[in-house]
Formats: sequence, structure tokens, C-alpha cells
Amino acid sequence: MTKLRAQIAMSLDGFVAGPDQSEANPLGVGGMALHEWVFELAAFQTMHGGSGGVINESTPVVERMFDNVGAVVMGRNMFGPVRGGWGDGSWQGWWGDDPPYHVPVFVLTHHAREPLQMGGGTTFHFVTAGIESALEQARLAAGERDVHAAGGASCLRQYLKAGLLDELTINLVPVILGAGERLFDDTAAAGVELEQKGAIVAPGVTHLTYSKSG
Amino acid sequence: MTKLRAQIAMSLDGFVAGPDQSEANPLGVGGMALHEWVFELAAFQTMHGGSGGVINESTPVVERMFDNVGAVVMGRNMFGPVRGGWGDGSWQGWWGDDPPYHVPVFVLTHHAREPLQMGGGTTFHFVTAGIESALEQARLAAGERDVHAAGGASCLRQYLKAGLLDELTINLVPVILGAGERLFDDTAAAGVELEQKGAIVAPGVTHLTYSKSG
Repeated sequence: MTKLRAQIAMSLDGFVAGPDQSEANPLGVGGMALHEWVFELAAFQTMHGGSGGVINESTPVVERMFDNVGAVVMGRNMFGPVRGGWGDGSWQGWWGDDPPYHVPVFVLTHHAREPLQMGGGTTFHFVTAGIESALEQARLAAGERDVHAAGGASCLRQYLKAGLLDELTINLVPVILGAGERLFDDTAAAGVELEQKGAIVAPGVTHLTYSKSG
Repeated sequence: MTKLRAQIAMSLDGFVAGPDQSEANPLGVGGMALHEWVFELAAFQTMHGGSGGVINESTPVVERMFDNVGAVVMGRNMFGPVRGGWGDGSWQGWWGDDPPYHVPVFVLTHHAREPLQMGGGTTFHFVTAGIESALEQARLAAGERDVHAAGGASCLRQYLKAGLLDELTINLVPVILGAGERLFDDTAAAGVELEQKGAIVAPGVTHLTYSKSG
């Protein structure tokens, strides 16, 4: 059985985004501080069409994120700031003509839209039938490879609560945001159980990996 | 300069105690799950006058807790469930005649009480002049050794917010409590900044150590 895997950056006080998320500030106020460790990495720069950057203990963690991944699922807010219907369809994601996925990406939404083919092998498929359907379509597209759940928090929380997330890497950043969106809100009642697999300390972040229990 | 050091167990969703703390349930509902990893350790059993138990990756972390420690500060609720005045003074702590501290312990309280001398070198001193005074008295008693902040959450939070906690080890347990008391509540506004020092993965817990920034 292939896996559904995710990574998410979290503050010491449990927030995965700051408060007041908006188009101008998609990570919420202060949320950028959760990701500073990744921007400086050569692995990240290369992934986003840049060059330069450093190699450190985080490098294999970031490289593993898309290693052996055949499809991606993501939430509507991860795809873009547009709410409600798709309007003229001009929003094509945050990533430009050549998104860093290079595989089929299944976007959870309540509003149907034709598939959107981008450069480099990325096609966005818009799924209105819910998280199970999106995962099923992603697994089919991925074949023998894994599926990456790209986020955001709400998408990951839904897969966590449904017991469908097989592996979760929390990139724990030593900042205290004080407000924002928490990954684990409402997950206790759903009986979510995780088993710790490992930890890697890197500059400005500790990578904690958990798998679904049992 | 000697250090003020603390360790505290925390759930993945940031709780250091469950909800509804009481004399019968001092860790709150579900809070015991935060400490299961420690009970099985030989280092813990020995510390509390027992025997047996296992040795694993947590052993040096638990041993370090009281290593080179010359005094302890703790909150009123960590000392006992008695609220308000001390009544007949019959409450002498949770630990019996020979508490596991073996050094002077300074208890934060709003109610004065004579020092309480126990077996094995532990004397409880009751400090009504606030956290700075308690720390000052503890440092004086500790001499060239460090001071251990034993908890609970409120005590550690006060030292964190005041910028007085030099080292904090979070024993992160892969459980999701869903409710209870959070360590970091209200610490963002106080401008608390921590720097990560290391992580140790052990059975059922990951030990994350942070120091005060700057």
C-alpha cells in the first residue's frame, strides 16, 4: 500500500499559520517566520527554479518531501486566495507556469473547474467530491508511488481526523506566534493517534516524524 | 552565572496538563499519558525510592534534571492541592518524608508559612515576595550549582515571560489531549525568544532542549 505523506511547519505554541491570513499575507501575520529555515536551502531554491543556497541537515528532509511522490492533494486555500466560484479562471496557483510539483495535483474545492495543465508535468484537477475521492484519484494517478498532502492546515487536519494520513513530518520552529491556526485543533475528539518515528535537528528547525498508529 | 533550568512534558497539541486538575487528578484528565515514558525508567524509580526499571535514551535526560542542581523553585500547585491558607499545615507535599529533591526548595505562594524540613536534605521554604525573590534565594542557596524550576506550568510560564529561564527541555509526547493547560499561552506578547539546542528521540518521547535567546 502506498502512503499519504505530509510535512508542515509549526511554532512551539502549535500554530501552522499566523492570524489574519489574506492574499497579501497568505501565511498570516508572523507566519513567514515558520519557513525561514527552508528558504535558504539549495534544495528549496532548485525546486522553485532558483539557484544557490546552502546544504544542511534539513536537505534530506526537504528532498524526501517529493521523493517517490506520484501525485499531490491540496486544499483550496493552498492553491490560491480566490474564494467562492472561480470567476474568469485567471487564477492558476501561486507558482507561475512551472509549479514545483511535476505530477497531477488534486485540489479540494466546492466549485467545479476544468483541469488546468501547467508546464513541467503539473496538472491541477479540481475535486468537489471530498477528501476520500481526492485521495482515491491521487492514488490512482500515483500508481506505485506515494501521495503528498501539500496542505494547508485544514486539508491536513481533515486527512488526520479521517485516519488517512500515514506519515506526518512536523518542522518545529523555535518561534512563539501567540495566535493563528493550529494543526491539531479538534483532532483529539477524532481519536487521532500518532507514533513517533524520528527527529532531526537542523539550523532553526527540528524535524519530527510521526506515523499513524497501529 | 549559574542557570535556571526546567523540564516539562507536553502533548503534540501543546498541553502540559489535562483539563479539570484536582487533588484526585493533579495532572488533569488524560494528563498521566504525558508521563508514561518516565515511570518505566530506572532513573525515575531510583529517584523516588523504588528499584527496577529500564535504561534507555531518556536516562541521561532525566539524570541531567537534578545534576549539578543546588536548589529548586516550584509553584504552589506543584507543592500540593491545598488552596488559600495553609490550614493546620498538615500538607507536606506529594512526596512523603524523603522528597526526591535533597536541596532547598522554594515554593511560590501568597500565604506565609514556616520552613518545612523533610528527610534527605530537602527543606521547603515558602516565598511570598514573588518569582524574582524566590529565584534570588534559590541562587544564593545553590551557590555555584544551577537552580531547577520544577513546575507546574504557571510557575514555568512566569519565569519564561520574565526572561529568567535559561534552559527549557520539552519532553514532547505523541499524544493529543485536546484540552487542558498550555505552557506557551500568553508568552508571545511577553516577547519570549528561544533558541533550539538539541533533540533526543527516546521510546514514547522526544526531548527538545531550548535556551534563552541572545
